[in-house]
Amino acid sequence: MNYTPPVKEMMFVMEELADIASVSQLPGLADSNADTAQAILDEGAKLAAEVIAPLNARGDQQPSAWRDGEVTATPGFADAFRQYTEGGWQGISHPAEFGGQGLAKLIAAPCIEMLNASNLSFALCPLLTDGAIEALLLAGSDDLKARFLPKLIEGAWTGTMNLTEPQAGSDLALVRSRAERQGDGTYKIFGTKIFITWGEHDMAENIVHLVLARTPDAPEGVKGISLFVVPKFLLNDDGSLGARNDVQCVSIEHKLGIKASPTAVLQYGDKGGAIGYLVGEENRGLEYMFIMMNAARFGVGVQGIALSDAAYQKAAAYAKERVQSRPVDGSSAASVAIIRHPDVRRMLGTMRALTEGARALAYVAAAHADFAHHHDDAGTRARHLAINEFLVPIVKGWSTEMSIDVTSLGVQVHGGMGFIEETGAAQFYRDARILSIYEGTTAIQANDLVGRKTLRDGGAAARALLGEIDATLDALKSADAGDAARVFEAMHRRLSDGRAALANVVTYVLDTGKRDPNAVFAGSVFYVKLAGIVLSGWQMARALLVAQRKRADDPAFYGAKIATAHCFSEYVLTQARALETAIVSAHGDDPLFALSEAQF
Amino acid sequence: MNYTPPVKEMMFVMEELADIASVSQLPGLADSNADTAQAILDEGAKLAAEVIAPLNARGDQQPSAWRDGEVTATPGFADAFRQYTEGGWQGISHPAEFGGQGLAKLIAAPCIEMLNASNLSFALCPLLTDGAIEALLLAGSDDLKARFLPKLIEGAWTGTMNLTEPQAGSDLALVRSRAERQGDGTYKIFGTKIFITWGEHDMAENIVHLVLARTPDAPEGVKGISLFVVPKFLLNDDGSLGARNDVQCVSIEHKLGIKASPTAVLQYGDKGGAIGYLVGEENRGLEYMFIMMNAARFGVGVQGIALSDAAYQKAAAYAKERVQSRPVDGSSAASVAIIRHPDVRRMLGTMRALTEGARALAYVAAAHADFAHHHDDAGTRARHLAINEFLVPIVKGWSTEMSIDVTSLGVQVHGGMGFIEETGAAQFYRDARILSIYEGTTAIQANDLVGRKTLRDGGAAARALLGEIDATLDALKSADAGDAARVFEAMHRRLSDGRAALANVVTYVLDTGKRDPNAVFAGSVFYVKLAGIVLSGWQMARALLVAQRKRADDPAFYGAKIATAHCFSEYVLTQARALETAIVSAHGDDPLFALSEAQF
Repeated sequence: MNYTPPVKEMMFVMEELADIASVSQLPGLADSNADTAQAILDEGAKLAAEVIAPLNARGDQQPSAWRDGEVTATPGFADAFRQYTEGGWQGISHPAEFGGQGLAKLIAAPCIEMLNASNLSFALCPLLTDGAIEALLLAGSDDLKARFLPKLIEGAWTGTMNLTEPQAGSDLALVRSRAERQGDGTYKIFGTKIFITWGEHDMAENIVHLVLARTPDAPEGVKGISLFVVPKFLLNDDGSLGARNDVQCVSIEHKLGIKASPTAVLQYGDKGGAIGYLVGEENRGLEYMFIMMNAARFGVGVQGIALSDAAYQKAAAYAKERVQSRPVDGSSAASVAIIRHPDVRRMLGTMRALTEGARALAYVAAAHADFAHHHDDAGTRARHLAINEFLVPIVKGWSTEMSIDVTSLGVQVHGGMGFIEETGAAQFYRDARILSIYEGTTAIQANDLVGRKTLRDGGAAARALLGEIDATLDALKSADAGDAARVFEAMHRRLSDGRAALANVVTYVLDTGKRDPNAVFAGSVFYVKLAGIVLSGWQMARALLVAQRKRADDPAFYGAKIATAHCFSEYVLTQARALETAIVSAHGDDPLFALSEAQF
Repeated sequence: MNYTPPVKEMMFVMEELADIASVSQLPGLADSNADTAQAILDEGAKLAAEVIAPLNARGDQQPSAWRDGEVTATPGFADAFRQYTEGGWQGISHPAEFGGQGLAKLIAAPCIEMLNASNLSFALCPLLTDGAIEALLLAGSDDLKARFLPKLIEGAWTGTMNLTEPQAGSDLALVRSRAERQGDGTYKIFGTKIFITWGEHDMAENIVHLVLARTPDAPEGVKGISLFVVPKFLLNDDGSLGARNDVQCVSIEHKLGIKASPTAVLQYGDKGGAIGYLVGEENRGLEYMFIMMNAARFGVGVQGIALSDAAYQKAAAYAKERVQSRPVDGSSAASVAIIRHPDVRRMLGTMRALTEGARALAYVAAAHADFAHHHDDAGTRARHLAINEFLVPIVKGWSTEMSIDVTSLGVQVHGGMGFIEETGAAQFYRDARILSIYEGTTAIQANDLVGRKTLRDGGAAARALLGEIDATLDALKSADAGDAARVFEAMHRRLSDGRAALANVVTYVLDTGKRDPNAVFAGSVFYVKLAGIVLSGWQMARALLVAQRKRADDPAFYGAKIATAHCFSEYVLTQARALETAIVSAHGDDPLFALSEAQF
């Protein structure tokens, strides 16, 4: 079966949890209301399900191919990309001033999700273009914006992010690519960049590379990195495409997954230097990169949700069809569809709960971004920005880590067929494995959560969220739970536990972070997971409150939401205390540093 | 880097935890002593590391190939297999009467481990042959034994297990293959079998298929299944190879992993019927299969440990080489090897702890098998058999599930390089994914643990093991912990917690299993994991006691064991309570069955 975008569920999250009504009240976002969202999602769902999803398996079987420096995308991709850009999807949340639709990030989020669920390899191309657009919007000169943004936002040109070099992965201080100032204000760029997603391809007229490099007199380390625009084809004065720039794709990688998406090695300057244009000021490249990466990391988090949903849909469909064994409760003397077996239900219920919880958290984070960018009060903007920035490493880290588990469960539900490539479950499993690595590994997200997002503000953002959880806990207590009383009790018990665990860990991080950084950072990935579990669980609790209140309006949909919230409380929130213990109890006992390097 | 069999660690487990000294006192096992084991492991390690491991990547890149019914193994495999059989490895634990070496299962276990760690695809061929040998030893007539066992034990012929059919995976009641009695006492076999590992290949002169099929008048369901030997080539009266039998390999599968191991679709009887020989009695096939599967399931559990160790070794080597970022504790102003970063250590420490704990549990289970088969007292044999049979679904279920996590961590340690196929970390991740599926999925192991291994004996085996854990807890309290006092305290605290969690779950399963099977079976996979964690943790506690006592003899080795035990207590045993909660709290609340099938 093919993927079907869950538009109803997406609308539920946008309306009931991420409060699209309030977002549409923000200056400049009047069009970002529920009616528009419904229309856009319906239209996007058609494109995703009918045009893009059918190419997903083909992209895995016939990956992008490199020959003599040129990369040919999987057959059908270029045409689908044309349909994508003609529909205006690349510009959905970018400014109208440059040809975009200027809609809220909250509306962009489900669009990104359905595109990625349909075909992750395909979706990476627009996602990287979004990153290039964000960088130029943030720090590009008026001239750079005028020359590059309209074509990028239209989708006629695509963008890339060039950070990594063979010796510089997570550690950008080690970047060696050089940028030499020319008399005309341009730079000549030299160096090798690796792992460049869609770094070369035949789906667009031009490719706009955003490249980190050092000027000759730059300080060492991360404070000496500048950001440059290096187009594949230089532009003539009238904006038309001119000469080929000195950047060559020397190879593409042979990867575990996302095979249709070419991962390029790019060589700059072998023929005298690639011409580059400085973005913003010299030596501030990393700063721009970080702001841009906040958006990209959010997008990768949504990719985790997308693959999880696609894997869930496939597994649920298989479990309804596949007949195998009698039920353990004796309710049938004949073999039944495996969805009637408790462990298959446990797997499907867990997949579903994890996916819905992570989706709700991501969309709520997107709404905070909209408030952070559009509210007319600076203090309100700052408050929402702090929450959004606290949530981004959690959305990225948690949604991608959980997608590895969810896609693995998807394989398991299929039994032996899950291991056969033609089934398609294995592709989700392989594709998902990159998500916790690129745009910053989970450990990098965890460093960010501990350092920039918890220690730096003294836990303020974390505590603001804990306060909101308390309000939800109160609401669970005082609500009319009706016949869902047991679910409400279970959720209250588990969320209270999770909230306490998270609060203890925040306190621990604040108390210990500076004194014993090894202990705190040894537990930092667990902190990301704990925060992901508790904050997603909080969203599921909020969803439970709404679903019970509205249950009579749509018993099937809201009843499923109540049961899914219950799965979340019993199968996911129950892990919170274990994470707290593992984080806090490592402290002082030093089990990891007792081993010398030679002993490993 | 290539895999190096951890012979010292293996000997430690065999001598200190699985008590090889006592095993070698058993009737018929005098040769199975520590000196012999050391010599065999040293020899096996050479073959594994020098001959078989170097073919692992090649097998992934140049899988077995099918053409016109014939399968050609990866280049080099046939020669390596010849060296394997010439060394007598196929017969290591099989009876001397038929040409084997008659050594203990305890000695076979590390041999299986190093073979699988070197090359899982390759190792599957001998593993399946072991299954065929066990079946014939158990239930074959003297004539069948005489004709087939010597060649199988020599390795000149290989064996397969033919259970699965398109409609009959976990549910063998649905087997449809037919066996028609002939006048001469043979049968004609008709039907299609799928997922037959090494079902066709060119590495041996003959292939001995063990096939489940129904006779025309057999009862329905699993009570009407018989087991047959169906050789690829029939035997002449003098034992030499005769005519080709009517079994054809019509295709092999395109799989996520274990690509060098051909997974065959076998068609029986298209040319009038394949000649088969009944094993044992009609309609008792499933019973024989189960006993044989106990051995095969143990072997698959060891495969999980093997891949975990191989993945760990590769990740640790990479982490020592790869330089990236300054340490968080400020101990260096320059970038350092990533093994100095706390999260990388957390990953490596967890991988290592999980692997060592699972290995120790598996080898202890193997020693119980030796006691169960060789002790001269029937009551003692029965007691050990009960423990062994309780442990097998745990060794299979837990070691394979944890291998998915460990190989995933192995990818993560490599960062972006982990996603590139040439690195090799991804192959472990792909190969591992079959382990929790074949020879019975984890849910099937969990059904076995709940039904046959806990409910049937009223929890006797489980409680015997809980009693042994209590003895270890007492020993932790009374031991002279010296400068490892904090480790002893931590282990005592976590193992006590885990022991209590496991005891509560056993009680819950016994109390609830019949009354509310859906609730118990919904938590049954968690029960497997909980038991795996607690029983492995118990072995790590036993290892800790030995290591502290002997620490001065070999500070590096025993110091590492102590630190690894500490990692196990803090990063693994801490999960026990969460599993207990998820198992027990689901009861009565029915979060999974609140959803109708349509709501999924």
